[in-house]
Amino acid sequence: MPSKIPVGILGATGIVGQRFLQMLEHHPWFEAVWLAASDRSEGKEYAEAARWRLKSPIPASVAKMRVSPATPEGAPHVIFAALDSSIAKEMEPRFADAGCAVITNSSALRMVKDVPLVIPEVNPDHIKLIECQSWRKKNGGFVVTNPNCSAIGLVLALAPLHRRFQIETVMAVTMQAVSGAGYPGVASLDILGNVIPYIANEEEKMEEETQKLLGTLNGAGIIPAPFKMSAQCNRVAVEDGQPEQAPFICRKTMPSL
Amino acid sequence: MPSKIPVGILGATGIVGQRFLQMLEHHPWFEAVWLAASDRSEGKEYAEAARWRLKSPIPASVAKMRVSPATPEGAPHVIFAALDSSIAKEMEPRFADAGCAVITNSSALRMVKDVPLVIPEVNPDHIKLIECQSWRKKNGGFVVTNPNCSAIGLVLALAPLHRRFQIETVMAVTMQAVSGAGYPGVASLDILGNVIPYIANEEEKMEEETQKLLGTLNGAGIIPAPFKMSAQCNRVAVEDGQPEQAPFICRKTMPSL
Amino acid sequence: MPSKIPVGILGATGIVGQRFLQMLEHHPWFEAVWLAASDRSEGKEYAEAARWRLKSPIPASVAKMRVSPATPEGAPHVIFAALDSSIAKEMEPRFADAGCAVITNSSALRMVKDVPLVIPEVNPDHIKLIECQSWRKKNGGFVVTNPNCSAIGLVLALAPLHRRFQIETVMAVTMQAVSGAGYPGVASLDILGNVIPYIANEEEKMEEETQKLLGTLNGAGIIPAPFKMSAQCNRVAVEDGQPEQAPFICRKTMPSL
Amino acid sequence: MPSKIPVGILGATGIVGQRFLQMLEHHPWFEAVWLAASDRSEGKEYAEAARWRLKSPIPASVAKMRVSPATPEGAPHVIFAALDSSIAKEMEPRFADAGCAVITNSSALRMVKDVPLVIPEVNPDHIKLIECQSWRKKNGGFVVTNPNCSAIGLVLALAPLHRRFQIETVMAVTMQAVSGAGYPGVASLDILGNVIPYIANEEEKMEEETQKLLGTLNGAGIIPAPFKMSAQCNRVAVEDGQPEQAPFICRKTMPSL
Repeated sequence: MPSKIPVGILGATGIVGQRFLQMLEHHPWFEAVWLAASDRSEGKEYAEAARWRLKSPIPASVAKMRVSPATPEGAPHVIFAALDSSIAKEMEPRFADAGCAVITNSSALRMVKDVPLVIPEVNPDHIKLIECQSWRKKNGGFVVTNPNCSAIGLVLALAPLHRRFQIETVMAVTMQAVSGAGYPGVASLDILGNVIPYIANEEEKMEEETQKLLGTLNGAGIIPAPFKMSAQCNRVAVEDGQPEQAPFICRKTMPSL
Repeated sequence: MPSKIPVGILGATGIVGQRFLQMLEHHPWFEAVWLAASDRSEGKEYAEAARWRLKSPIPASVAKMRVSPATPEGAPHVIFAALDSSIAKEMEPRFADAGCAVITNSSALRMVKDVPLVIPEVNPDHIKLIECQSWRKKNGGFVVTNPNCSAIGLVLALAPLHRRFQIETVMAVTMQAVSGAGYPGVASLDILGNVIPYIANEEEKMEEETQKLLGTLNGAGIIPAPFKMSAQCNRVAVEDGQPEQAPFICRKTMPSL
Repeated sequence: MPSKIPVGILGATGIVGQRFLQMLEHHPWFEAVWLAASDRSEGKEYAEAARWRLKSPIPASVAKMRVSPATPEGAPHVIFAALDSSIAKEMEPRFADAGCAVITNSSALRMVKDVPLVIPEVNPDHIKLIECQSWRKKNGGFVVTNPNCSAIGLVLALAPLHRRFQIETVMAVTMQAVSGAGYPGVASLDILGNVIPYIANEEEKMEEETQKLLGTLNGAGIIPAPFKMSAQCNRVAVEDGQPEQAPFICRKTMPSL
Repeated sequence: MPSKIPVGILGATGIVGQRFLQMLEHHPWFEAVWLAASDRSEGKEYAEAARWRLKSPIPASVAKMRVSPATPEGAPHVIFAALDSSIAKEMEPRFADAGCAVITNSSALRMVKDVPLVIPEVNPDHIKLIECQSWRKKNGGFVVTNPNCSAIGLVLALAPLHRRFQIETVMAVTMQAVSGAGYPGVASLDILGNVIPYIANEEEKMEEETQKLLGTLNGAGIIPAPFKMSAQCNRVAVEDGQPEQAPFICRKTMPSL
């Protein structure tokens, strides 16, 4: 058995970063070896820097790891990024420019022309867009994004229908857990006994990402799927969309990166 | 000022019956003078028979009123009915047959051909169907129904659009409070931290009632509005759709019944 | 009937300030005529400056009132204060020093030796402490405080017991609504499906305030009630302790201030 | 390694029975081989008879097992009982009388003089009471009970304090999840936005069980711990007391039964 692929987590102390570490704890291919966060956390032990919010305990292998500065120096080749969008916009290109393979959960670069937005089960061919990225040409670095959480579930269901029947119109309504807003996120006074019929930018993301995901690769870009699309996104008083039970979908063999 | 119109409440001890009594407490036209419920409550004082669940106190004028048997003898001419559907199906015709004006919140007779289903702001002309009812012809009694609570809000919004543009398709998604399921209704284990994407018969009701409400009177029946309609109804962890704040919409003058 | 007493609200845009305005809307004695808040709100119309969070609408009489700067110039004699504790500590003495009667909901000065902490039904005699305040002596101004919300309910129940039997030990456990933490306050991720067994400083406040409230006036101070007292305060997933239904307890006649 | 001990579940289709099966799925010593429930379920496959409510899936090994009649014939020697109290009162003695070792979660027999109420970490010596049971003398059968869930946590904390200092008074307040009321249990209309300061019989159970658990074995009975005890039990809007994360406390070696 080959040794695991070392990976770094950008934004390791936030809730998404914590979820990355939770899911990597027993992962057969990847091993978290480098954690970066904001200046405030730098140099501290992870267990001290992060306010751990998940129900399972902090993985023992990372609890005492030192938090590194969020710069490409010393970072491993493969980076899983969990930064806030505003920071990601500057930081992710910097890591790609330094030669890193940046796989990101942030929305910052999803709609950039030569950045692939990928659901592995739906549009793995979009990965080829990487070859058009200037970072890639320069020194091998690149950025791949994954979609908005609500778009993923929707597109997994739409993809086979679209391929078989060519969808004309999509009207989607979501009811989303508060965990998606991060921490502290949604105020309890707003959500107890209530439904909030608005999540900032979520409807726009679902609409444009769905069309990019189901679009077709064309040279250095994606032609969006041509159907009409309308999304209404609502927040409900549910903590979490039950990710603990999500099956971890894996390819059979370890990828070479 | 004329004296108020005396009314009776059928199903007075249930949650809907309680709401009727709450809303009638200071009503300018109507006065609850007769309360009926199941055999179990018959003969008891209302405050003893009903397990009062609303936040405002039991109206003083009804607290000590005796619960009457649920038969037309001794009932006033005007009846507001708040019975479970299965019982309403038998009981409401019996009161109409005895000459009562039955205005009902139950779904039992809503889709019967010559029974008007009415939102006063939308289709007051459907009231004319009353004249086709056999009870009416016999001795003046009749049944008028109001729609499913979810249909009301939807149709109020659709009506002016339909009149101006002729709607082709309606896709409606609801998030509904647990109060709509009555008491005990939805189990807390089912709804805490959850959304339930199913309410028995609710989608069917919303679909067929919307089409009847926006339909056109044609002799002794209603031709349903011809648009396509699809409803998805969800239950959410919200107690109540805030009826306390609902404006009590009134005509300017008291009706003569 | 005499004209109403004009009052000012310090901290009028926050949740407590909003509640003051809601309760004053139809008040028989008091009329809100002056609203002050932070620099950010100054000069704006109240309806624009405040993010109104209560279920009843903004009282019409204050919606268009301009927000004044939070300084005693131009303020009426009677001030209801609803400031955050840290700001209240500086601001309330400033208004008292300028001759205002400051009745405050903040905890800042509650435990100050010559400041009365009062529940009208329990210890109205403590009001006499006002006469010891330097502001009062200087130009008539003074500060009166009301207790922590949890202490009020507890002490109303304890007072007659203490007078009759001399309490030896009090062990109190609370379950408190999230509204008490203000807005945004408690994060929904913290409270959904949970109970939080800690509210910062609340247990200390309940303990020391209970003993001051049930203490005895002695010259220029209060000798705390001598019983042992232990409080455990918990936050639960409840929006509000139902203040809408709280009876508004009034003296029969209007006070002269 | 020895083969596992075969066990039967009485009341296998209810929520407690489901929890037994979930916890036994990978248990090193025990294996569920026999499932019994009410007449309604008898003869059906378990997956069909039970409305499975836990988040983890039905253990594959029991999904297709036939539900047996709830009689001792054909039952294994060791029985874990998860019956409603009213039924347990009759059924558990019947199984003990037939020679079964009945370990029960029901409250029916907890306070019976010669029935041990046991927390293994607290009062394992109480097990000796078994020898006084008539069933045991007759043919080896016996009943052992475990305590009310709220009493367990409390007594684990009190036991070392009591042994070291002799407790004089206990005042306990609980906030309990709705899962403890079974299904459908607590109505959502009762618990959303609320705390229910009453759980039928729970306070009595906590009080008398705590005193029996910390009592001393004396011949054929237990002398209850002599401290004063007061419990206040509250229901809160929390689904579950997080049993998924409860460590499974085990002795090092498999018991011989």
